Amino acid sequence: MSSILGSRAPYAGGVTRPLALAVDLGGTKVEAALVDGSGIVLPGSRHRRPTGPTSASPALERAVREVVLAARAAVPADAELLGLGVGSAGPIGVAEGTVSPLNVPAWREYPLRRFIEDLLPGTPVTLRMDGVCIALAEHWVGAGRGAGNLLGMIVSTGVGGGLVLGGRAIPSPTGNGGHIGHIEVGGFEDPCPCGGRGCLEAVASGPRTVAWARGQGFTGTTGEDLAVAHASGDPVALAAVERAGTAIGRAAASASSLLDLDVVAIGGGFSRVSPALFEHARAALAERTTFAFVTRTTIVPSGLSDEGPLIGAGALVHQSDLLDRPAV
Amino acid sequence: MSSILGSRAPYAGGVTRPLALAVDLGGTKVEAALVDGSGIVLPGSRHRRPTGPTSASPALERAVREVVLAARAAVPADAELLGLGVGSAGPIGVAEGTVSPLNVPAWREYPLRRFIEDLLPGTPVTLRMDGVCIALAEHWVGAGRGAGNLLGMIVSTGVGGGLVLGGRAIPSPTGNGGHIGHIEVGGFEDPCPCGGRGCLEAVASGPRTVAWARGQGFTGTTGEDLAVAHASGDPVALAAVERAGTAIGRAAASASSLLDLDVVAIGGGFSRVSPALFEHARAALAERTTFAFVTRTTIVPSGLSDEGPLIGAGALVHQSDLLDRPAV
Repeated sequence: MSSILGSRAPYAGGVTRPLALAVDLGGTKVEAALVDGSGIVLPGSRHRRPTGPTSASPALERAVREVVLAARAAVPADAELLGLGVGSAGPIGVAEGTVSPLNVPAWREYPLRRFIEDLLPGTPVTLRMDGVCIALAEHWVGAGRGAGNLLGMIVSTGVGGGLVLGGRAIPSPTGNGGHIGHIEVGGFEDPCPCGGRGCLEAVASGPRTVAWARGQGFTGTTGEDLAVAHASGDPVALAAVERAGTAIGRAAASASSLLDLDVVAIGGGFSRVSPALFEHARAALAERTTFAFVTRTTIVPSGLSDEGPLIGAGALVHQSDLLDRPAV
Repeated sequence: MSSILGSRAPYAGGVTRPLALAVDLGGTKVEAALVDGSGIVLPGSRHRRPTGPTSASPALERAVREVVLAARAAVPADAELLGLGVGSAGPIGVAEGTVSPLNVPAWREYPLRRFIEDLLPGTPVTLRMDGVCIALAEHWVGAGRGAGNLLGMIVSTGVGGGLVLGGRAIPSPTGNGGHIGHIEVGGFEDPCPCGGRGCLEAVASGPRTVAWARGQGFTGTTGEDLAVAHASGDPVALAAVERAGTAIGRAAASASSLLDLDVVAIGGGFSRVSPALFEHARAALAERTTFAFVTRTTIVPSGLSDEGPLIGAGALVHQSDLLDRPAV
C-alpha cells in the first residue's frame, strides 16, 4: 500500500497515513477536502459547489455528493481514510444527524449524516455545527493553541461561533451550543431573523453593518466597499466599523462573564474589514467591566486561513477525543 | 468510633459516615454546616455570623473562624470529616485561593482558602464561587437532577449564577465562570456596579427592581413590600415584576443560545416575589427566538431550600469528581 515516493512514507510501525475527509456546509457553498493528522489540507483534494437560498434539495444533495466523492478520489494509495467530519451551518440536531441551516431553506431537519454515510458505506461520519469546528480548529492549529477556554467567532454574512471549554468542545445536547450571534447586546434593538432583537448578528454582521452605513448616507453595497471607504477615512465607514466592533466587544464581555474565556478568536470575511474592528472590540471589552477575569480575555484575529472550516471538520475525526458524546 | 444509636450506624464495610464541612460566604453573612453524602445538612450543625460592607478584615476572620469551629464541633463521633467545601461570592481567584466579594470591600484578593486550611490543619479545602456551588446543588438534589446542561441562578440583592455543562462544573480558569448577572440584556441601559450598562443584575435584582418601581411612584422599600403590592394587583408592582422577569428570560435566552441549556433553575429571595416572575421569564424566552434549541430550555424555581448554598459547598467535597481541576 505504501507509495514508491519517499515523501509519502508510511507512518512508523507500518501504519498508513491517517486522513479525515472533511465537509463544510454553509449558506453559499459546500466544500470537501482531505485533512491530515497535523491539520493540513492535502493539496488538490479541496472541492467546492454552490448551495444557497434558492437551491432545492436534489441540487444540494448532488453538490454534497460531488464534493465528497471528489475528495474521496484524492485519497493517496498509502493513506487510510479514518472517517468523515462534517461541519454544518446551524441549527443542527446532533443526535438525529440532521441540519436546518438558516440560509438553506430547502433543508429543514434534513438527514445529512445519513446521506453522507450512504455515500461511503463503512466510513464513520461525525456531524457538528460549523462554529464548533472553527473553535476546534483555532484550538488545534490556530490562534487558540494552548487556550483552555476559547470562543471561536465568525463575522461574515452572519455571526457564528463555537466553544472549547477546558480544552474540549462544549457539551451540547442538541449540538447548537456556541451561537454567540444570538446573544443580546445592551442598548441595541435591531430585529434579528431568529426572532429576537439586539442580537449580535443583527448588529454586527457584514450586511447589517453595510445596511446601517447606508442609512447614514454610505453609497457602497458590500463589506469590501466599506473596507475601502474605511481605509480612506470616510466618517460614516469609520462609525460603522466602530459600531460593529463595539457590539462584538460587548458580546465578548458577556460571553466571558458567563464562561471565563481565555481567548476570543475572530475570523470570517467581515472581520477583515479593518484592524480597527478589533481595536474597537478590545476597547469595548475593557470599558465594559471592572472585572479582571473578563478584561483578561484577549480578542485576536483568527489564526486560520480560509481552510479553517475544513480543518475544523477534520478535527472532528483527528481530535475526536475532545468531543462531547451525545446520548444517541 | 461508632455511635451507640442505631440511627447513625457506620457505613457498610465499617467505613465511618463521611461528612463535608460546608462554608458559604456572602455579602451579608457567613454560614457553616455539616453536609452528608446525600446532600442533607446535619440538624444542629448550621451556624451563622454577619459579614457585610462595613466589617473590617479581623471581624470577618473571626466570623469565619467561629462558624467553622462550631460546625467542626458538631461532627458526630461515628463520622469522618472528608474535607471542607467553601463557596464564596465572587469574584474569586481559584488558583490562588483568594476571594474579593463585591459586597465585602474589606476583602480584596483575601487568601480565604489558606485561612481556613490553618483553622483545621490536615483537612483539605476546596474553594469555588457560590454560583458554582448552587449549580452543583441543583444538579445533585435540586431542580436540575438529571440535566446535562444547567444554569443555576440566584436573584436576590444581586444576580449570581453557576453552570453545570455535560453533568460537570464548567471548566473555569479563574473560577468566575457563571456570572450571568453581568451579561447584557438588549434594550436596557441601567448602569451596573461592575462598570457595565444593561447587565441583568442592574435590571432585575431585588433592590434595582424596587428602585425602578419607586421611580414609577411605588412607595414601598423592599422586595417584600413589592411582593405584597403585586399580590394586591398594584399596577406599578405588576409592571416591575414583569420588567424583571422579562430581563431574566431574555438573559436566559442569550445564555441558552450560547450554551444549549436544558434547565435554568432560579432561586434567591427576590425569585419568590411572585410566581408571575417565572411566567414573564418563560414568556420572554419563548418570544425571544424561533430557535427550538433555545425555546426547549425550561425555567423552573430552585429545588433547594435556603440550605442550597451550603449543600452546594458540600458538593465540592462529596461530588469532587464533577469539578474542573485548576492548574495550580
